Amino acid sequence: MGTILLLSGPNLNLLGDREPEIYGTTTLGDLVTVATKRAADFGHDVEHVQSNGEAALIDAIHGARGRCAAIVINPGALTHYARSIADALAAFDGPIVELHLSNTHRREAWRHTSVVSPVATGVIAGFGADGYDLAISAASRLIEQRGQ
Amino acid sequence: MGTILLLSGPNLNLLGDREPEIYGTTTLGDLVTVATKRAADFGHDVEHVQSNGEAALIDAIHGARGRCAAIVINPGALTHYARSIADALAAFDGPIVELHLSNTHRREAWRHTSVVSPVATGVIAGFGADGYDLAISAASRLIEQRGQ
Amino acid sequence: MGTILLLSGPNLNLLGDREPEIYGTTTLGDLVTVATKRAADFGHDVEHVQSNGEAALIDAIHGARGRCAAIVINPGALTHYARSIADALAAFDGPIVELHLSNTHRREAWRHTSVVSPVATGVIAGFGADGYDLAISAASRLIEQRGQ
Amino acid sequence: MGTILLLSGPNLNLLGDREPEIYGTTTLGDLVTVATKRAADFGHDVEHVQSNGEAALIDAIHGARGRCAAIVINPGALTHYARSIADALAAFDGPIVELHLSNTHRREAWRHTSVVSPVATGVIAGFGADGYDLAISAASRLIEQRGQ
Amino acid sequence: MGTILLLSGPNLNLLGDREPEIYGTTTLGDLVTVATKRAADFGHDVEHVQSNGEAALIDAIHGARGRCAAIVINPGALTHYARSIADALAAFDGPIVELHLSNTHRREAWRHTSVVSPVATGVIAGFGADGYDLAISAASRLIEQRGQ
Amino acid sequence: MGTILLLSGPNLNLLGDREPEIYGTTTLGDLVTVATKRAADFGHDVEHVQSNGEAALIDAIHGARGRCAAIVINPGALTHYARSIADALAAFDGPIVELHLSNTHRREAWRHTSVVSPVATGVIAGFGADGYDLAISAASRLIEQRGQ
Amino acid sequence: MGTILLLSGPNLNLLGDREPEIYGTTTLGDLVTVATKRAADFGHDVEHVQSNGEAALIDAIHGARGRCAAIVINPGALTHYARSIADALAAFDGPIVELHLSNTHRREAWRHTSVVSPVATGVIAGFGADGYDLAISAASRLIEQRGQ
Amino acid sequence: MGTILLLSGPNLNLLGDREPEIYGTTTLGDLVTVATKRAADFGHDVEHVQSNGEAALIDAIHGARGRCAAIVINPGALTHYARSIADALAAFDGPIVELHLSNTHRREAWRHTSVVSPVATGVIAGFGADGYDLAISAASRLIEQRGQ
Amino acid sequence: MGTILLLSGPNLNLLGDREPEIYGTTTLGDLVTVATKRAADFGHDVEHVQSNGEAALIDAIHGARGRCAAIVINPGALTHYARSIADALAAFDGPIVELHLSNTHRREAWRHTSVVSPVATGVIAGFGADGYDLAISAASRLIEQRGQ
Amino acid sequence: MGTILLLSGPNLNLLGDREPEIYGTTTLGDLVTVATKRAADFGHDVEHVQSNGEAALIDAIHGARGRCAAIVINPGALTHYARSIADALAAFDGPIVELHLSNTHRREAWRHTSVVSPVATGVIAGFGADGYDLAISAASRLIEQRGQ
Amino acid sequence: MGTILLLSGPNLNLLGDREPEIYGTTTLGDLVTVATKRAADFGHDVEHVQSNGEAALIDAIHGARGRCAAIVINPGALTHYARSIADALAAFDGPIVELHLSNTHRREAWRHTSVVSPVATGVIAGFGADGYDLAISAASRLIEQRGQ
Amino acid sequence: MGTILLLSGPNLNLLGDREPEIYGTTTLGDLVTVATKRAADFGHDVEHVQSNGEAALIDAIHGARGRCAAIVINPGALTHYARSIADALAAFDGPIVELHLSNTHRREAWRHTSVVSPVATGVIAGFGADGYDLAISAASRLIEQRGQ
Repeated sequence: MGTILLLSGPNLNLLGDREPEIYGTTTLGDLVTVATKRAADFGHDVEHVQSNGEAALIDAIHGARGRCAAIVINPGALTHYARSIADALAAFDGPIVELHLSNTHRREAWRHTSVVSPVATGVIAGFGADGYDLAISAASRLIEQRGQ
Repeated sequence: MGTILLLSGPNLNLLGDREPEIYGTTTLGDLVTVATKRAADFGHDVEHVQSNGEAALIDAIHGARGRCAAIVINPGALTHYARSIADALAAFDGPIVELHLSNTHRREAWRHTSVVSPVATGVIAGFGADGYDLAISAASRLIEQRGQ
Repeated sequence: MGTILLLSGPNLNLLGDREPEIYGTTTLGDLVTVATKRAADFGHDVEHVQSNGEAALIDAIHGARGRCAAIVINPGALTHYARSIADALAAFDGPIVELHLSNTHRREAWRHTSVVSPVATGVIAGFGADGYDLAISAASRLIEQRGQ
Repeated sequence: MGTILLLSGPNLNLLGDREPEIYGTTTLGDLVTVATKRAADFGHDVEHVQSNGEAALIDAIHGARGRCAAIVINPGALTHYARSIADALAAFDGPIVELHLSNTHRREAWRHTSVVSPVATGVIAGFGADGYDLAISAASRLIEQRGQ
Repeated sequence: MGTILLLSGPNLNLLGDREPEIYGTTTLGDLVTVATKRAADFGHDVEHVQSNGEAALIDAIHGARGRCAAIVINPGALTHYARSIADALAAFDGPIVELHLSNTHRREAWRHTSVVSPVATGVIAGFGADGYDLAISAASRLIEQRGQ
Repeated sequence: MGTILLLSGPNLNLLGDREPEIYGTTTLGDLVTVATKRAADFGHDVEHVQSNGEAALIDAIHGARGRCAAIVINPGALTHYARSIADALAAFDGPIVELHLSNTHRREAWRHTSVVSPVATGVIAGFGADGYDLAISAASRLIEQRGQ
Repeated sequence: MGTILLLSGPNLNLLGDREPEIYGTTTLGDLVTVATKRAADFGHDVEHVQSNGEAALIDAIHGARGRCAAIVINPGALTHYARSIADALAAFDGPIVELHLSNTHRREAWRHTSVVSPVATGVIAGFGADGYDLAISAASRLIEQRGQ
Repeated sequence: MGTILLLSGPNLNLLGDREPEIYGTTTLGDLVTVATKRAADFGHDVEHVQSNGEAALIDAIHGARGRCAAIVINPGALTHYARSIADALAAFDGPIVELHLSNTHRREAWRHTSVVSPVATGVIAGFGADGYDLAISAASRLIEQRGQ
Repeated sequence: MGTILLLSGPNLNLLGDREPEIYGTTTLGDLVTVATKRAADFGHDVEHVQSNGEAALIDAIHGARGRCAAIVINPGALTHYARSIADALAAFDGPIVELHLSNTHRREAWRHTSVVSPVATGVIAGFGADGYDLAISAASRLIEQRGQ
Repeated sequence: MGTILLLSGPNLNLLGDREPEIYGTTTLGDLVTVATKRAADFGHDVEHVQSNGEAALIDAIHGARGRCAAIVINPGALTHYARSIADALAAFDGPIVELHLSNTHRREAWRHTSVVSPVATGVIAGFGADGYDLAISAASRLIEQRGQ
Repeated sequence: MGTILLLSGPNLNLLGDREPEIYGTTTLGDLVTVATKRAADFGHDVEHVQSNGEAALIDAIHGARGRCAAIVINPGALTHYARSIADALAAFDGPIVELHLSNTHRREAWRHTSVVSPVATGVIAGFGADGYDLAISAASRLIEQRGQ
Repeated sequence: MGTILLLSGPNLNLLGDREPEIYGTTTLGDLVTVATKRAADFGHDVEHVQSNGEAALIDAIHGARGRCAAIVINPGALTHYARSIADALAAFDGPIVELHLSNTHRREAWRHTSVVSPVATGVIAGFGADGYDLAISAASRLIEQRGQ
């Protein structure tokens, strides 16, 4: 029924390959499949955009305004400084789920602060590939509640 | 098959009544029902403990050692200073999901730091009652992965 | 006509005995007597709870909801970190007076910050036993104003 | 019997007019009346000085030395930086009550720190016009105790 | 039609003379002439007050309440600590333009923080004498918009 | 006679649509029209570049070197962390006006610090669409003064 | 001849079982045996209280006033925030030895600060089970010196 | 031959009376006598201004421009926040000696930072009345060196 | 034998032209020539990418994985905040040399912290064009050591 | 059997003489006697080095490598900044006991942080001369455990 | 009559040669001559020790105990971290004058904090060679006052 | 032709022996050989001084003034606090290369700040023994450039 925009920030294209002891061996393609499948359970489809650049992610968020029902975003390391992405999300009128593969609070101190969280509806972190399933579920229920 | 310990910290007994503009009108009983139902889907049951005191929560965590398959904990305001709860959780050998009804990052600055997150497997925040459903799902999958 | 809950935090049971150069020789019983007498002038009675534990104080605050007209609380050293007490007070719907025997700003730096003040109606500190008289007067007038 | 110097800092002359959602509609004249009446109950009279300038307030404090029995001071925004007023108060040999209409701890962060508190005998904040009554009572009892 | 209060803080009376490598050779009289001329273009006149003291500036702001259409203020070094001036401005009901001759952000660190900015409508800094022209223009347009 | 480069950072393309309670209903096109008109009064034309990306803004600044007479830049949220833009501006040899629609000092703490200000000639903030008019006027006068 | 109160804070009941790579395999019972044996050498006996709660530890400290000759306390994670325990200890009139199994300065940053140390006579940390022997010896000698 | 302006900030008029354990029993008149006598040795006279207000001190500094050979200033508590006085001193073209009776570094932390020092030629602190003698000597030699 | 990826961040394309008092008159082309020549001494060739954008630099780093033997990177001002570049470098499996023309520790405070250093093998700063020679030498030797 | 190196940092040669209200009247010679006697109980001898200089202490630590069984060090004020001593200790392969006569946490804030603690096995502070006895005991047991 | 110990810290042996724009062309020998001459006026002689090492300076301070009447110390850069020197000075029983050639508050931030000031009687800074004359005068008068 | 002073700070004499997982197995003698050989390529010789003490290093730097062509310094842990060494280097008139074996930015936080860097010409860190080769090359080229 609706479209959920799934956004993947810098370096997520390396998934399954980069630092597997932190991020596991699942590829980004696998994660999109997980998300798409779960979205289908709720009657939604998933549009996926990955970029290593802040600008492309902002463009994608702008493009979702008035067209997508929700955004699920894993901003990668941009989480911690890309205020422009946060401003773009604040201008989106639907639910926003911030998603991280790892539990950022168990890692370096600079990963403990997210500039995106204050504009997100909710946050899910630390569940690896399962997090994509959970985030799509969360977004779908938020869409539902809005629809009521 | 397994038991998931669901822990609720101080003031969560007031849910549905206290500051509904932040926490909604769902009661704690409703949340336990949501959690229990979802756990049943995975073949688990839920044991729920609510306390306004750090000591009782630590006792419950100790009691779960070697007996429960996972812990889902919403520590309330203790999240932000109760280091002893974090130490107790660190001594628990299964998956731990930290759960918050509200998105703590949209509220007062002191709610942005959790002393529990560094010992949790993952964190879910901002999804209200749905968070209980998501957290039980997350914990169940983590149990499953361990079982493999 | 109404009941004022008077709460005394950890170590206040030692009053009259502990560090008399800071806290004087008046006992906690004396203070309750002062408070009760002043409350009677306004037609109120005083219910007193002392505990060395955060949980018992939270329970007492919960028990006052919908039953007591105001709370006067001297949280002792919990003033400076017990966020759960602040959350409990925030869920109480009447006037709240934060009370300290000593002027906390003349003492160690960590006593200068109160996590309770942001949820209190007002604060009284540094007047020793007289502070109990003043706090009950303040609470009584606040009740009166609400009643109008 | 004695004289209590009541000092009002900058902008308090606007009371009843300025930001009534914070400070209420009572005028400074009303507050002085409240204070004077309560002081009379204790056999004291009140001398009131309002100034928008640090120097005039210091002069008034100096003038009270050896002549007034106590000082009740609401330093307005000077509370947070006027170290010279604190030094002047430290040279006054009677009780000093620091008084604020609003609960400064519920407002902007810079209002949470008072440079005056470390030299005050006690602090009363958040009770509006009633605070003047309470502060005069507090000062009167402190005078009494000194007299003993 | 309206009056714009132009306020100049401490040391601005030395303009044209003091540290010309930072502030240029224009005198304060020249700046008032610039401001008055531009105000005339909009049908307003300018009332100018310079003082080296916080109290006199606060008095002038109070005097403008209900009488002046806007305030343009260059608080000099008071910008960085005079919270009482900020409180006085907050009680003024028209547009407020904060004005600096130099770009304070290119100078010492303590000049980077203004306690006045949070209560100003807007800020203009770094344009020397032209800033007075710009500030009066800005204030005039804000008056106009209010008038509509 | 000369060209003024007008730069708009991320999310400004949404103007008139995004968070109108902060940014008003004027569109970016309207602002460019205001700027162009005012520039014409001074005999200048305006070249406008909007981008959601740091790189494109830096490219535009480089392109202005030796060709444009001045830069007016509203860097959006990049204001607060994009040090590379500041370095690019530092290599531009004409006047630079930093411009913000809102008064950034009345908003979140992270908006109070600009990494661009130390390399700007001057700053204008808080005047909405009028700010574009003021900034072009300021830039034009600075060009004039250089020409003398 | 005298009684030494040995206090063990939260999670110490798990000793020998919890994180043995940090705390070793000795149980709490073993440690009490070590302490009791050493105390006997000095003619003292040991009274041991373990609790996961701040309140029970405070109660035990109060109970030692006027009855026990010294306190040896390992407050567990409460070391780092339980100001109420520090206040209770400050009201105890004999020697106080703060004891930690691990060298807290080699671990997480938050374990480097003890709120208990400023009220302790001395501190012993990092010697595992031997620390209990050392702490009882230290306490016994302090008792002896007082007795002289 | 020349005139040295001796400036005394707030509360120094109380000298000999206020907190003698810190400031001694010498009066301000005594200090001016000491300074005048020493200045005479160098052929200079002393002009003394004491004020409890920042504005009057700034006015005095302005009045010294082009007329006095040097300034010796004890700004009292204004030392620590009165940036406007520092700006006024920066516009004075002769030697400036900052002077304190007590060693400010042995007192409260806020007395350790002087906003005046960065614009002073030199600083003398902690020598009581002798400091006036030393400061006048220092100023006189600086005048001499300029004269060469 | 191998390829060394030489990366140049924002504004480095201006070299020889921009702020020559800091960066000298050598152009980026000159630096690449220096680097290529030195690499040839070790039997390596150099691939050079310059971009003003974070995304393009990340793409280049990704492209080097499994293909280039080492990376020499001068990230320009991105050094100080571009965490995404650091994450990309962390996923590169060969030696990484961080290179700066100027000694960043002699400049503004924000240039003293590099988010790239913690993932670099080594750092070379302050040697101007010679730094390129040194960095290539360093990288070449690191490649050699790996090869052994 | 083994040798324990006992190191005493700057000013400890004054013991018994310097600030006896903090350090007592025992001399350094007395302390070495206490330590030697206790070491003899364990079959060890003590080698004592006192120096007011960091270099000599480092030389002594180097000299102990491969020759002494343990180090007991009271670094005096070097505790708080002498990182080179910490590095030297880190290169010693036996147990290291950090020892302080006074409880450093009851004194000035700068004495609360030790740069030595992170490389020590354990810390003993606040027991005066008894601390030397305790530290030698602790070191002896650590040697024993290593020997097993 | 008495001996004043004049201590010169690291790099002062270079005086007259090193960075003359900050320290002038006077040599250390010249300064000792100035000091000795002034001391003779008061009937004292001067003993001078210069060392580039903390240990030698501490030794000299120890050697002055019970033998010298006062210490004048210019600790050079050790001023800002050599806590051991401060401890040594604290054990000296006569007046201590801290002396700096330059006004340290006009230089780098790290030179603004002295670890020596809290144990000095007074501080003199910024008067070049004259400072030695002033410091000896100050010390001599302090000796005199002690003698009374 | 010239002499390069190579300085090695505390604990570097242990190289090849101390913490080989960080510093490798190369000895200091090996490093001096590497440096000497590379210097010979440029026609320079190397003078090497190692000391565990700040004073000896300062003496060596002083001794190099007017005699050596450049300094290469690895200050060991003194890097992070020995301001006196930095002052000594600032008085040396030739190029200065700061050198570290390990990449200090990958280690403890206190190793991230160097007090020496602001007075060095350039910095090389993280290349182990190769760093000595690189540093001598860098110094030699800097000497050459000076010679031109």
